[in-house]
Amino acid sequence: MSENVVNKVIEVRRNSLDDYVVEAIVGFQEGPGLVVIRGRGPYISKAVDVYNELAQRLGDGLELVKVEIGSERVRGRIFSYISISLRKKF
Amino acid sequence: MSENVVNKVIEVRRNSLDDYVVEAIVGFQEGPGLVVIRGRGPYISKAVDVYNELAQRLGDGLELVKVEIGSERVRGRIFSYISISLRKKF
Repeated sequence: MSENVVNKVIEVRRNSLDDYVVEAIVGFQEGPGLVVIRGRGPYISKAVDVYNELAQRLGDGLELVKVEIGSERVRGRIFSYISISLRKKF
Repeated sequence: MSENVVNKVIEVRRNSLDDYVVEAIVGFQEGPGLVVIRGRGPYISKAVDVYNELAQRLGDGLELVKVEIGSERVRGRIFSYISISLRKKF
């Protein structure tokens, strides 16, 4: 379905929480598709913080579509990651 | 269904990764139900590390049943959390 198109993937790292929250909200304005919040290694916790901040601001308007966890190899090292797929409902 | 009974909830904190991996494997031996790995705040990343370590050791025998994220209030402070529900298939 076209609504499962990914508008934007946001990789959470060292910027402030609010930076990523704003980036996600802008992402939702770009179309009806998904915004994916990703975090790797120590930034997994922060990615969940971004989700919670968005959930608080958008309330019922935010739909948590999917949460994926796993591991991936980046420049020879293995990292845990989280990938949080979100949709804005209205 | 009885298979969705939770055998054990493991709260990931300061112990070693292997401690939690062993605790989970023991949890699976206690019955056919779920083992839930939980992490709060900075321990969310470590909870995902525990999952990945289990996935590597148990391979296809490990089923990732559900991943929940959210926030909860603990002693007046709000924390992000993750809750990873796992089943051992064989």
